[in-house]
Amino acid sequence: MTDLTVDFGNALDVEATPGVSEGILERLDERVADVHDTISTGMAEGEFGYASLNLPERTDPAAIEDAVADIDADHVLTVGIGGSALGAVTVSAALGLADRHHTLDNVDPEATRRLLDSLPLDRTAVNVVSRSGTTAETLANFLVVREALDEAGVDWTERTVVTTGEGGPLRAAAEEHGLPALDVPEGVPGRFSALSAVGLVPAAILGGDVEGVVAGGVAGREALLDGGSLFDYPGYAYGAVAYALEQRGATVNAMLPYAESLEPFAEWFAQLWAESLGKDGLGQTPARALGATDQHSQLQLYRGGRHDKLVTLVRPRERADVEIPATAVEGMRYLGDATLGELLDAEFEATEASLAAADQPNVRVEFPRVDGPGIGRLLFDVEAACVLAGELMGVETFTQPAVEWGKRAARGLLGGGEFAEADAVAEKTTRVVGGK
Amino acid sequence: MTDLTVDFGNALDVEATPGVSEGILERLDERVADVHDTISTGMAEGEFGYASLNLPERTDPAAIEDAVADIDADHVLTVGIGGSALGAVTVSAALGLADRHHTLDNVDPEATRRLLDSLPLDRTAVNVVSRSGTTAETLANFLVVREALDEAGVDWTERTVVTTGEGGPLRAAAEEHGLPALDVPEGVPGRFSALSAVGLVPAAILGGDVEGVVAGGVAGREALLDGGSLFDYPGYAYGAVAYALEQRGATVNAMLPYAESLEPFAEWFAQLWAESLGKDGLGQTPARALGATDQHSQLQLYRGGRHDKLVTLVRPRERADVEIPATAVEGMRYLGDATLGELLDAEFEATEASLAAADQPNVRVEFPRVDGPGIGRLLFDVEAACVLAGELMGVETFTQPAVEWGKRAARGLLGGGEFAEADAVAEKTTRVVGGK
Repeated sequence: MTDLTVDFGNALDVEATPGVSEGILERLDERVADVHDTISTGMAEGEFGYASLNLPERTDPAAIEDAVADIDADHVLTVGIGGSALGAVTVSAALGLADRHHTLDNVDPEATRRLLDSLPLDRTAVNVVSRSGTTAETLANFLVVREALDEAGVDWTERTVVTTGEGGPLRAAAEEHGLPALDVPEGVPGRFSALSAVGLVPAAILGGDVEGVVAGGVAGREALLDGGSLFDYPGYAYGAVAYALEQRGATVNAMLPYAESLEPFAEWFAQLWAESLGKDGLGQTPARALGATDQHSQLQLYRGGRHDKLVTLVRPRERADVEIPATAVEGMRYLGDATLGELLDAEFEATEASLAAADQPNVRVEFPRVDGPGIGRLLFDVEAACVLAGELMGVETFTQPAVEWGKRAARGLLGGGEFAEADAVAEKTTRVVGGK
Repeated sequence: MTDLTVDFGNALDVEATPGVSEGILERLDERVADVHDTISTGMAEGEFGYASLNLPERTDPAAIEDAVADIDADHVLTVGIGGSALGAVTVSAALGLADRHHTLDNVDPEATRRLLDSLPLDRTAVNVVSRSGTTAETLANFLVVREALDEAGVDWTERTVVTTGEGGPLRAAAEEHGLPALDVPEGVPGRFSALSAVGLVPAAILGGDVEGVVAGGVAGREALLDGGSLFDYPGYAYGAVAYALEQRGATVNAMLPYAESLEPFAEWFAQLWAESLGKDGLGQTPARALGATDQHSQLQLYRGGRHDKLVTLVRPRERADVEIPATAVEGMRYLGDATLGELLDAEFEATEASLAAADQPNVRVEFPRVDGPGIGRLLFDVEAACVLAGELMGVETFTQPAVEWGKRAARGLLGGGEFAEADAVAEKTTRVVGGK
């Protein structure tokens, strides 16, 4: 039911440049076996980062549903940023809840005002997510949201749930006001936390299939533990092929799902891949895309541009479909014999073949359908792929040291303390054209 | 009022690797002068592609507004894909109309059904855009939309406007049913058509500042024609610096606007840059991003990853702002002295400085505010930058030959004729892991 497959035929060097051979992969699989020992031992011992791959076992859907059972809402507004938002958005979209799950994951004043003006605040749950409870963007937005609810005469303490770490201001606020409070799991970086309360609270409030998502993750975890070879476990197949292609020049990974409900998955992937692997002068640049739309935007580049890309094509094997009405228009009658889904799948296969015909490496990822088990399995296997790739690359997959500099600079600029980084901002080298 | 500036101080080789020196740019400016002759002559003679840069002069906002004056609607549903949608979405978002402008730019059956179920069809205008009138996705969606309006008892012929080329099925449908019909301008590739009816019809229907958008383009065109040097005209400065950095290894261009209303601009840019420059084995891969959100997703990669990226930071100089309410939370009091806009701008400057501190090349683009003149100027100058870069690279900027293969394959797969490309799909090399 939750079977996910990875097909890397179009990444073999008989088809693609750069490409990998069976011989390359067989030698690589010896390293994969060693890395699998590291990963499975890390999982068994709950080590930092590796613990992420235990989430399907640790997460209790009923406990999440119980915690939010008293919140009666038609909409959820998630206040969080990065890993505190993208997993939840991805899960909600896959469960068909995108129209009722909204996010404040930026500090744009105009967009914030517009969103708050458009929501029925007395029917909206506020879901605040920050491990530390001190993320500047999230705190600022939460303060603005609370004020908006106050001004609308809505008691925010009756409609707010927090997901946070053991201590910090959000945990304190939850205790002070009696808010439901869930845990950001220990040992799990934010971008690996989709299969915990961090990713599942909005779906739980909106009645989505939280159990199914976790079950999909459980199936992925079992496949990982049963596997240990890139030739057996699709998560490892994807991670190993992506790594081997990056070594050979594929420094971009274009993620191209063929389903609108997977558009946030491409954004989630972009964070996972960039923050985990983009370090020490290495890492593929994730390019977020969407099929079939981006055939009319990015395909020219993917086919005719540099041979520096892996294109990852993702689709469900089944969709709810819509018939295309018959047409008498000359040359277009064939459309009337098809459905939108058949058209979309024909475009998927045509794009894949078109990349192969241009020797551009690509990989196909398929799973049964976009639903709870489907997205749970997809997220888990791609996380496992990322952990494997990081081990093969020799980077620290679970940290993000390069983002701290900017946080200190921004804080200093706003008067939140003395930081040398803020002084560097004033010393910017300028070379301006225009504005005369 | 419509002044746009490009600051490439952080792309100079004293700051960044790769980087450019004043000497490199002075030599390059001699080539820019030659290319400027080609561009300005092409504009004067209305040559294919170069004619795009005349759109601000050719486009008559009043004529567009007159054509749609009889359509009384609260929402617009644009049916189009690629260059037939992205420009309009970008303009609408910049004019604050994003919530009322919807797009069918994919053939996902589930998303299409959901969108049609959610719209008030009797208050929605249908805006169908295709130069040829034969784009498969657009025709299929238009047939589905017509049926939905029929089933809702709404007369689609009273609410539909088409923008298309001289002939073709859409033009014929417009004549048969007496629909308002606007022209896709001759000599202008779709991705360069935002400053024509293709980009402006939805804003015209929804009462947006169409005149302002065109005026912004006019200002850009005047600056281009007055300029001719990368040291004078910001559009050329951006195109020349991007080209020189690509030559030196910056094969990714991460577009990072700091305004939610510019998020579609990053998508529009991704098409413009990818389809125009991604050919003959060259071209930067555009990475669409959004500040400040992607600081928590992509910044680790941009700072700590490969030195293969130009990061383009874009912001308005002014925004409507929102105060952050005071907070007593320990260590967070500084937020209560700021606004969301100040926080966003501090993050912009902190990110820029953080990239510079890591020797990662970046360019700052600023303009007065996100409104009609602002977006018109931004779109024009970036188009000019793209044309300049294409000339410097020696590619055919205005064609997209690599996308035809897949179109033939998809058509063949759906029974729309005999195409050798469709046979290639059946011959795919498969190498599947998983699914046992």
